[in-house]
Amino acid sequence: MRSSRVWQRPTLGAVAARAEVSTATVSNALNGTGRLSEATRQRVLAAARELGYAPASISRALARGGTGVLGLTMTTYGDLPVSYTEIPYYAQLSLSAIAAAHERGYLLMVMPCSLSPWMWLNTPLDGVIHVGPRADDPVRSLLRQRGIPMVSNGRPPQPHWGDVWVDTDYEAGLRLLLDHLTEAGARRIGLSLPLHDDEYPHLMERAYASWCAERELPALVEEYASVPDYFTAEQDAVRRLLDRDPRPDAVIGIYSDSGHNILAAARHHGLRVPQDLLVACVSEDPDYATTAPPVTTLSLRPDRVGDEAVDLLIALINARSGVHRHRLVQPVLAPRRSTRRPVRRGNVTP
Amino acid sequence: MRSSRVWQRPTLGAVAARAEVSTATVSNALNGTGRLSEATRQRVLAAARELGYAPASISRALARGGTGVLGLTMTTYGDLPVSYTEIPYYAQLSLSAIAAAHERGYLLMVMPCSLSPWMWLNTPLDGVIHVGPRADDPVRSLLRQRGIPMVSNGRPPQPHWGDVWVDTDYEAGLRLLLDHLTEAGARRIGLSLPLHDDEYPHLMERAYASWCAERELPALVEEYASVPDYFTAEQDAVRRLLDRDPRPDAVIGIYSDSGHNILAAARHHGLRVPQDLLVACVSEDPDYATTAPPVTTLSLRPDRVGDEAVDLLIALINARSGVHRHRLVQPVLAPRRSTRRPVRRGNVTP
Repeated sequence: MRSSRVWQRPTLGAVAARAEVSTATVSNALNGTGRLSEATRQRVLAAARELGYAPASISRALARGGTGVLGLTMTTYGDLPVSYTEIPYYAQLSLSAIAAAHERGYLLMVMPCSLSPWMWLNTPLDGVIHVGPRADDPVRSLLRQRGIPMVSNGRPPQPHWGDVWVDTDYEAGLRLLLDHLTEAGARRIGLSLPLHDDEYPHLMERAYASWCAERELPALVEEYASVPDYFTAEQDAVRRLLDRDPRPDAVIGIYSDSGHNILAAARHHGLRVPQDLLVACVSEDPDYATTAPPVTTLSLRPDRVGDEAVDLLIALINARSGVHRHRLVQPVLAPRRSTRRPVRRGNVTP
Repeated sequence: MRSSRVWQRPTLGAVAARAEVSTATVSNALNGTGRLSEATRQRVLAAARELGYAPASISRALARGGTGVLGLTMTTYGDLPVSYTEIPYYAQLSLSAIAAAHERGYLLMVMPCSLSPWMWLNTPLDGVIHVGPRADDPVRSLLRQRGIPMVSNGRPPQPHWGDVWVDTDYEAGLRLLLDHLTEAGARRIGLSLPLHDDEYPHLMERAYASWCAERELPALVEEYASVPDYFTAEQDAVRRLLDRDPRPDAVIGIYSDSGHNILAAARHHGLRVPQDLLVACVSEDPDYATTAPPVTTLSLRPDRVGDEAVDLLIALINARSGVHRHRLVQPVLAPRRSTRRPVRRGNVTP
């Protein structure tokens, strides 16, 4: 009795009625065409999502000479020993981008880190989301040669005129975390910093240095090689931080596994968290809710980034006007026990 | 100085040396060709992964008339109000399938639930992984018409000769969970069961009924409509279970949000978990590690399913011989506080 349900999709009219707009507006909103306010577009997308409406509009993309397929790739970490889809940030980014593409009638293909230039020149794609591009990334010039629309996740290091990107407000995020630590009483916050030619560690280091200078607090940085084994390398870097005299009262890391590495180094030094040391890292890994103790994390909101990047890429493909071509996503802090202000016995200061 | 790293991949020879095989064997293992033992293939894949080797062999697929692209789709739940990639089971399945495809030199595209038959007939694909197929699913007959190799995730309800699938041992999994509950003292285990034309609830119901019959324990089932709002519907079903006299001493659910729903119903009845009621569900959601109390879950191992399905599909595409065409993945139990045997004061029974 429910067997024909798969092909009984809600109609365009049902979406229009729910969003209180015309069917033409629904069509424009879902296809990224026409002149609509972003508020209206968002209302239509919300209505379509609520009703489970999935437009079969890829046929339209094909009709106008497109493929209906978007690509997403991360080429900077071609040297990673695991698939980037196993790292929580990229996993969430990929899944939200797939969902955002489907919602707008496109398909999205997650591409491997390493792909031959020949493939980049020949795989049929309407547009590409390029995650964490470097200035000299060969994929960028190949796609530019082909004239394929491109949205960067992260501001490209040396942006060209016309570059389009979704960026993350790393500086605001790091300040959120550092302010949280000072509120919990930290005055000597150490940073364990990966050496990598990606922009991300450099941006974080600069944001950290300027925050420390403003607050007149010491900048305590130990660097480590991010390949081939950043687990051991980061633990060593944190140990060097903890060997300093006076010792840091907090240590932060900027990679997903940094929290685990800092906890391991603290254990090795016989330090209790948070009593002797506050610990936090930038991560999307839900495991930090159940470590001993649970670790405070800064989320870079890859789900929002994926959604915005797809929206922007489709706008670009369809030459939609009135779209802001540089978008900024704000990180969010998840405070947990590892940064809870230690209760001091005896001389309590106000 | 590290700028050319992206294109400096480890060579085929390096993988061969690490796996202690010839380069021809590496090539066969990665492309799913030739006659190799599964043990050798797995050793080569492990070596390739450790070295970060990603073959650019899609060009080969193109050369032999293929596209190098696999599809993955889930059409049964076309009526879901959210993207299926937002559900932890499908999210993990999709990500592991993408990684497994890349590892073997293929691309994988996650397709939306609802796609027009026209699209299924025209999108270029070498093969498709079909998740949770129904007997009468139109996508199956369309793909069969097109002669596109297909692997089902889940044994199809009325298998054709030649059907290929990766199945999950639901019965063994459910028995694992039910035995765990009886070890914790449960004697009246209630099941909250969704009404859906998918095979999964029916398989679980049958496994539950036969386990109860064997143990001579009462089968306590309450059904609920799985659409449009299964949250409220399941909570109502659990309340009906808890209204029974005598009351169940444990309740289990088979969907990802069932644990949350059962906890909510228990709170409504003023029951403490696990003291008054044991609670568990089938889920991949990491959130259950941090609910109050943390909830015991049965994992169906979507990561393994995705990996096996891709491996099997590529074997099928390349007409690899000696491959077992029906594979079975074993669920795994994650016991947490919600099913810890309540400590009874006074009359302790051995």
